[in-house]
Amino acid sequence: MASAGAEAEKPGECNDLVQLRNPNIATMKEDVLYHFGLSTSTHDFPAMFGDVKFVCVGGSPSRMKAFIKYVAGELGLDHPGADYPNICMGTDRYTMFKVGPVLSVSHGMGIPSIAIMLHELIKLLYHARCSGVTAIRIGTSGGIGLEPGSVVITRQAVDACFKPEFEQMVLRKRVVRNTDLDERLVRELMQCSADLGEFPTVVGNTMCTLDFYEGQARLDGALCSYTEKDKQEYLQAAYAAGIRNIEMEASVFASMCNACGLRAAVVCVTLLNRLEGDQISSPHDVLAEYQQRPQRLVGHFIKQHLAAARGPRAPARSGPCGCE
Amino acid sequence: MASAGAEAEKPGECNDLVQLRNPNIATMKEDVLYHFGLSTSTHDFPAMFGDVKFVCVGGSPSRMKAFIKYVAGELGLDHPGADYPNICMGTDRYTMFKVGPVLSVSHGMGIPSIAIMLHELIKLLYHARCSGVTAIRIGTSGGIGLEPGSVVITRQAVDACFKPEFEQMVLRKRVVRNTDLDERLVRELMQCSADLGEFPTVVGNTMCTLDFYEGQARLDGALCSYTEKDKQEYLQAAYAAGIRNIEMEASVFASMCNACGLRAAVVCVTLLNRLEGDQISSPHDVLAEYQQRPQRLVGHFIKQHLAAARGPRAPARSGPCGCE
Repeated sequence: MASAGAEAEKPGECNDLVQLRNPNIATMKEDVLYHFGLSTSTHDFPAMFGDVKFVCVGGSPSRMKAFIKYVAGELGLDHPGADYPNICMGTDRYTMFKVGPVLSVSHGMGIPSIAIMLHELIKLLYHARCSGVTAIRIGTSGGIGLEPGSVVITRQAVDACFKPEFEQMVLRKRVVRNTDLDERLVRELMQCSADLGEFPTVVGNTMCTLDFYEGQARLDGALCSYTEKDKQEYLQAAYAAGIRNIEMEASVFASMCNACGLRAAVVCVTLLNRLEGDQISSPHDVLAEYQQRPQRLVGHFIKQHLAAARGPRAPARSGPCGCE
Repeated sequence: MASAGAEAEKPGECNDLVQLRNPNIATMKEDVLYHFGLSTSTHDFPAMFGDVKFVCVGGSPSRMKAFIKYVAGELGLDHPGADYPNICMGTDRYTMFKVGPVLSVSHGMGIPSIAIMLHELIKLLYHARCSGVTAIRIGTSGGIGLEPGSVVITRQAVDACFKPEFEQMVLRKRVVRNTDLDERLVRELMQCSADLGEFPTVVGNTMCTLDFYEGQARLDGALCSYTEKDKQEYLQAAYAAGIRNIEMEASVFASMCNACGLRAAVVCVTLLNRLEGDQISSPHDVLAEYQQRPQRLVGHFIKQHLAAARGPRAPARSGPCGCE
């Protein structure tokens, strides 16, 4: 497998290839992406994925399938009877769909689940020699002090102690990585939401936890050893630290995209206001509409970017690769 | 919703009801198990689940569907054309199937994913007033120093530093819980494997990590900053600490079952020997057969238990509730 870094740059292509932080991969004869059911020896990655510029990820398989169909319509690539087959049909761990330059991938719930997916996704983009890729997580979350249905664009992903760090144990050593996200992308997405004018959107910090119940100070799990007052103090302290929503994937998503040269953003809708309750008990149709909001925002963003990239001034202003 | 603990015990029923460690639940008018798509106000939990005695969980939805069909056959509850509908059909987060006293639930990958499922599963069993429940994780793992296809019955779940602990952040405080598993259950399962005589089975410690690549010392992730020698030293140290396999759910599974009065065991097949490689590249049919092994072992165990419970000496020796 040739190293993408050794390939000659194509005319007009930006020099922002997806990079690995692992010298071993370039020397492997075959790379089996086990949890995708794909392998470099059985699939032609450059042919299948070489044109990918936007990767959108979210927890739920059905939501990521709905997203690819929605984006296909927005980009004029949908047609009656069109099907979007699951590229990872050999496994039930993740689902993956593609239309034009957009890849849509499910990642399950929690840091470990999205991390497995990201390791294999980033290797896939590397093997496919992709460049100028933007990765956006479109997810659901609990809001703090926001009207349910509000969308939060993450300024910074923080941990359960409000620190902008992602900590991991590697060979019995504590490794801490930053969780920076792309500031320009935040501004562009905020502008897209203003253009749409369909739902409230804020920029705020996002707390990423390892647990949904005790880890997010819920009172309704199978285990709970604190009071409503303790919970309120914790969530109020989080609000004071600029946190506007809580989910379970943002920190490792930011950390890994950052390490491997992907522009990254996190756009989550809030399904409830955690200052007022813990249970997600809104009617199904209300929750379903909320979950479409990040899709509509990011669909609009992609459509605008591709239109700008085709326009005369685009390469100098807002090409999909982010070059200025 | 009445507290199960306040219910009068039925004649012949053991006093080992599933317990919650949260006094709030008994006072809630409705409990929405959001990630199951079930609620106490729309589903009759005692009628649907009151007879459950065995809960088997595993990462993959299709594997857990295959398991319920297999168990139905083993217990003589299968019939031509039988369908096993997904009880969680209102969501795509988890899948759940039931036949007789056996519940089969998928949990995705990683501690956060299985923890969400366990919180809601344990509440489900509590609302259903279940007693004498045995919970068994049937999963896949990487082996250390074992022939691929070997099955490991977990003696103790340990973390990435080999400690028998599950650590969690709750309201900015570090909470550490034990990861004890049921010793008698380990012996019973080991005896079942000996009875079957179909595949090698060992009892050993199981390391539970938060990451599949760097967290398990793999050399083939998108990120890797250590050498083959570092990896071998880590895995050899793990082996010396009695660790025979590595997976991503055992510690929180042991910890939560333990806290809530469920007898629990972890039975995982090893898909590869990590001392010899990192990639899971065996042919599909070989891996598929490996993945059936924990199902066959646990299916045999359940069948034996139910047969013993029907036998004359059973209540005093080996009832499904574990009473002696």
